[in-house]
Amino acid sequence: MDRSRLESFSDGVFAVAITLLALNLTVEGPGHGSLLYQLGHHWPSFVAYVISFFTIGIIWVNHHALIANIAVVNRTLMYVNLLLLVIIVAIPFVTATMAAYLTAGGQDAHIAAALYAGTFELMGLAFTGVLEWAMHEDERMHQPVPAAARTAVRARFYSGQIPYLVAVGVAFVSAPAAVIITALVAIYYIFERTPTRH
Amino acid sequence: MDRSRLESFSDGVFAVAITLLALNLTVEGPGHGSLLYQLGHHWPSFVAYVISFFTIGIIWVNHHALIANIAVVNRTLMYVNLLLLVIIVAIPFVTATMAAYLTAGGQDAHIAAALYAGTFELMGLAFTGVLEWAMHEDERMHQPVPAAARTAVRARFYSGQIPYLVAVGVAFVSAPAAVIITALVAIYYIFERTPTRH
Amino acid sequence: MDRSRLESFSDGVFAVAITLLALNLTVEGPGHGSLLYQLGHHWPSFVAYVISFFTIGIIWVNHHALIANIAVVNRTLMYVNLLLLVIIVAIPFVTATMAAYLTAGGQDAHIAAALYAGTFELMGLAFTGVLEWAMHEDERMHQPVPAAARTAVRARFYSGQIPYLVAVGVAFVSAPAAVIITALVAIYYIFERTPTRH
Amino acid sequence: MDRSRLESFSDGVFAVAITLLALNLTVEGPGHGSLLYQLGHHWPSFVAYVISFFTIGIIWVNHHALIANIAVVNRTLMYVNLLLLVIIVAIPFVTATMAAYLTAGGQDAHIAAALYAGTFELMGLAFTGVLEWAMHEDERMHQPVPAAARTAVRARFYSGQIPYLVAVGVAFVSAPAAVIITALVAIYYIFERTPTRH
Repeated sequence: MDRSRLESFSDGVFAVAITLLALNLTVEGPGHGSLLYQLGHHWPSFVAYVISFFTIGIIWVNHHALIANIAVVNRTLMYVNLLLLVIIVAIPFVTATMAAYLTAGGQDAHIAAALYAGTFELMGLAFTGVLEWAMHEDERMHQPVPAAARTAVRARFYSGQIPYLVAVGVAFVSAPAAVIITALVAIYYIFERTPTRH
Repeated sequence: MDRSRLESFSDGVFAVAITLLALNLTVEGPGHGSLLYQLGHHWPSFVAYVISFFTIGIIWVNHHALIANIAVVNRTLMYVNLLLLVIIVAIPFVTATMAAYLTAGGQDAHIAAALYAGTFELMGLAFTGVLEWAMHEDERMHQPVPAAARTAVRARFYSGQIPYLVAVGVAFVSAPAAVIITALVAIYYIFERTPTRH
Repeated sequence: MDRSRLESFSDGVFAVAITLLALNLTVEGPGHGSLLYQLGHHWPSFVAYVISFFTIGIIWVNHHALIANIAVVNRTLMYVNLLLLVIIVAIPFVTATMAAYLTAGGQDAHIAAALYAGTFELMGLAFTGVLEWAMHEDERMHQPVPAAARTAVRARFYSGQIPYLVAVGVAFVSAPAAVIITALVAIYYIFERTPTRH
Repeated sequence: MDRSRLESFSDGVFAVAITLLALNLTVEGPGHGSLLYQLGHHWPSFVAYVISFFTIGIIWVNHHALIANIAVVNRTLMYVNLLLLVIIVAIPFVTATMAAYLTAGGQDAHIAAALYAGTFELMGLAFTGVLEWAMHEDERMHQPVPAAARTAVRARFYSGQIPYLVAVGVAFVSAPAAVIITALVAIYYIFERTPTRH
């Protein structure tokens, strides 16, 4: 099997999912208060849009880098990749839910923020599946990660997953704090790099 | 004609259809009961999302494998492929309908489950069309299926279609049982492989 | 400029537009009459879905065939292609409108059917723009259409456009008749072939 | 890293965003006045659709031309490109908002038009980021822009940005005038060309 359709299908799913995030940007229209009031009232939607957009965008960059280094595409990889995509596609839903409940207060705000951070944690775990599949046999990568370096690769990649777990816990104390943590993790993954081909 | 645009267009349609499944993930928002209650109330939507996502994903993997082996692309193949895609694109609709009626009980639940399983049966029939087109002349495939092996290929592929027919019948007795059967067929097609190029 | 991104972007737009047609497949859900009644009540949506899906699908096949033969991609071609795409993307809207009004009767049904057939006429005109651009200079095509053959190409292609014009007129007498004509034109274009590369 | 997935993902996002514009084309359906009245009442939606479609389409053509000339793809480029895409994806929202408020009059119409033109200004700024990244080192482009020509390239490209700023200001005097200016800028960018490869 060749790599190009795996990339093409994944790119399509990433592109549609990232674009559907914008369906949550909406105002009620004339007759529901001034436009400025409505835009202000929906501020969690705009913040959530930006965080989720860049989180998906950054995971796409890392996906791109990792897959570019993969030499052999088999069915197992495709199914592990589907596990990643089923989470990605659910992100617009948890984003909309988080935005709808962030300012609702009470238990619901905590649960919505935990659902949001927890989905990102699942996304990270699924990405780990692709990474571990790739590192499992040297011939799967054009430039395999040397055995000695794998621990460091894992440490760096997994250390970005811990804050998502922390965010799930923090969500039950403060929903906004949990959302801020997920935004910070996105920034971490701009600089943390999955193994790629040079 | 070249194969790449057939793949590119098909990948696009698969990617959009699989992503539109998530539009059915939704909660009413604040003021319609607790968030946990709403999420629990919508459990058929989440189950349906996962089953349909993996069914479309697995058919994509098989589509990928089969098309990779096709050496000649003609207009007939394109129209047979369109027949497959017109079913794929309708899957988000039958998924949403099944999820909406699964817990409604009565005749409607039976019909919604039969519509769901029946659409997957149609998808399988359309896929059969692509498979039969490919096996019809040896020069259509890079690695043609030997005449002696075709019966086995057909037996293995078609045997996955029978449970969908069974599920349509079972739907009129038990809607959840029909849905469980369609989920099991998806698992079958993870292991059943369409003829591909090595 | 190279042809591949023109194809990739066009394929993406065709794929999303053809998939958005399915957003018009919907039932009101439990509490709005039996599911069978609702499905029956929405029959124009299902008919409209199939006609529009295959019309877009067939125009995609013809677009594929024509563009595969194009040797030079310039900005003019891209803008002519955008004119085609702006019509394609509007087709889900006119399809939904036609389906909503087909059984409404009265003047509105006539106008909705005329809008539907008229949009397909505009799509044909925009496709003509791409065809005429390609035939305008021999070096624009890998296998140029000989001057002697152009009249025949035009006659065959344009003769598919006339029924759309007829359908617009017929719509004001009988909306269903106009819809039937547009369905027949799709079948015509399965067999009429734009000049391609062999 | 290779250029093709950057193009493929960007093409996907452009294609979905440009197609989602059509979700704003809608009529209420039977029972909300005659169809002609409804279509006429929604004229701002149709005008907004056309302007936004061609603006996104033209920026795609320029994106295509600029990226085709890029020889080196690094992570910085990907993140600058994501900045462009996060704006592109928001355009269907600001288009729908502008269309909903254009005829509402009062302060809201001014704000909606300013939001519309302001988003296009942001899109231009993000595109500038890609352009400046490309011109920053000669080895980043197949055919680098000579130092002597850069001022002219900047002057020509940036001069298209000024009318968007003007439109934001004009919006507070006349919303329709601001929308007309944004439409004229789209026409300007049909003729203004970003540096590409010949």
